[in-house]
Amino acid sequence: MARRALGPDRIEGMTYIGWPVPEPQIPAETDPVLAHATRAAVRAFADARKAHDRAALAEKVQMGADGTPTMRLDILVDTAVAESVTENKVNLLSEELGSIDNGSSVTLVVDPVDGTANAAAGVPLSAFAGVVAVDGVAKEALTCWLDTGRCWHAIAGQPTPYRTSGREKLDGAAVSVLRPHGFDENAWLAVARRAARVRILSSSCIEAALVAEGSTDAFADTGSDTHRIMDLAAAMVMLPAAGGAVLDVHGRPLEIDPDLSKRWSGVAAATRELAEELAETIANAIQK
Amino acid sequence: MARRALGPDRIEGMTYIGWPVPEPQIPAETDPVLAHATRAAVRAFADARKAHDRAALAEKVQMGADGTPTMRLDILVDTAVAESVTENKVNLLSEELGSIDNGSSVTLVVDPVDGTANAAAGVPLSAFAGVVAVDGVAKEALTCWLDTGRCWHAIAGQPTPYRTSGREKLDGAAVSVLRPHGFDENAWLAVARRAARVRILSSSCIEAALVAEGSTDAFADTGSDTHRIMDLAAAMVMLPAAGGAVLDVHGRPLEIDPDLSKRWSGVAAATRELAEELAETIANAIQK
Repeated sequence: MARRALGPDRIEGMTYIGWPVPEPQIPAETDPVLAHATRAAVRAFADARKAHDRAALAEKVQMGADGTPTMRLDILVDTAVAESVTENKVNLLSEELGSIDNGSSVTLVVDPVDGTANAAAGVPLSAFAGVVAVDGVAKEALTCWLDTGRCWHAIAGQPTPYRTSGREKLDGAAVSVLRPHGFDENAWLAVARRAARVRILSSSCIEAALVAEGSTDAFADTGSDTHRIMDLAAAMVMLPAAGGAVLDVHGRPLEIDPDLSKRWSGVAAATRELAEELAETIANAIQK
Repeated sequence: MARRALGPDRIEGMTYIGWPVPEPQIPAETDPVLAHATRAAVRAFADARKAHDRAALAEKVQMGADGTPTMRLDILVDTAVAESVTENKVNLLSEELGSIDNGSSVTLVVDPVDGTANAAAGVPLSAFAGVVAVDGVAKEALTCWLDTGRCWHAIAGQPTPYRTSGREKLDGAAVSVLRPHGFDENAWLAVARRAARVRILSSSCIEAALVAEGSTDAFADTGSDTHRIMDLAAAMVMLPAAGGAVLDVHGRPLEIDPDLSKRWSGVAAATRELAEELAETIANAIQK
């Protein structure tokens, strides 16, 4: 049976995601190695959705370098990224494949599919996020929303064309959060009760980009220590460049580290004041 | 200063939403009056984002027909829809302008901008949702995601090309919810603790469409009675046509009624079994 060019589809009892995957709108000034890896990731993502139904995309096929099970979709995209960095002779630090040393001073820190659960199910909120790090210092970031091709680009120390909202207070803020995990329910509710708007989009990199462009005020892991460095690396470049801040709820330094067992509870906010108020609110509520 | 064609922008200290508003991909078989109203709404939405910054889009400029304050963005889009239905000599039932009687047996039930808070802030999750009702019975629905042009169309009693996930149990389901409102926190947590995935996208019509196409399993108002009939009308056509169900937590009948003070706690789910389990879980937790 022919596939429809557009729209969700169902073939022989298997449910494919039929929506198109547009070309990423990568800004011309993007580092060519980062741009190459991004295009490779988007192509692999589009191919994976053509070749596999929802169940096959979400199937956990191996254990990732970060110690969590890896979905087929992640593997397919991460493999394409690894081929790209090897072709370009730079190193890779990635969620699933871990650290690949190609003998360069440059490392791409990559979340090939941020929001994998969204992407595999068909919820159109997932992103490629990549950072260029030189000798361990993040220099440049690119987040591309896979479902629309929208990209946010930033270079460390240079202002971005987009700016955060500038909000400094939690009361009345628009805050994106991870879902509550049971043990952090108190902290989750402490934030939700004070925020004017609460969202759970399930894509940390898109949520951080929305903070950077001023569409929401903050994004927080309310103390569940879910974030790995590739969930936060793009925000660590993008937020300061757009007027905001990124920090950890418990004050641990955010570092690009090949040890992928490390976790953080990241807070990305429109201002340092709001980031600190969120971190304090969460840390206090967790202690209770 | 010239506006950038693409990407968020900041002009003279005012923050415009610079992302494009694509043409809606309206299926050819759509009722021409509904298609006309949809195109008018999308044009007005695109014009509003060009003419007004975030603060001006979100400014509450009058009291809506549903008894809640109306943002400028809502008024601009609703006015365009009202002109369209009057040109086409059908009636309108809409959130902001209320009931407009043009002496027809056909009424368009319209949420001109579902997820207005998202749309005004720049969070790219908002939709036009319209239903063709004949003598008070919903016959056809169209939901168009304003930020991407994706549309979901359904005709009552006819199967849609997309299907729900078929999930029957809440344990392990992917559930979208409204944010907790304080008084419904118990019910909200009762659902969140049993669901495998929890999302708050803040656009009821997009969330219902994602249930209809099988990308999530359910969407629920956990007892806050926030839903008006235009938040649920499209789902009332689309979900049954795709294999799912829509009902109210407290068993109140879902009816197209010009009395816009009426509220429901809607549940849209992949199956009737899941909808009933969700409604029971919420109703029991609220009573405690």
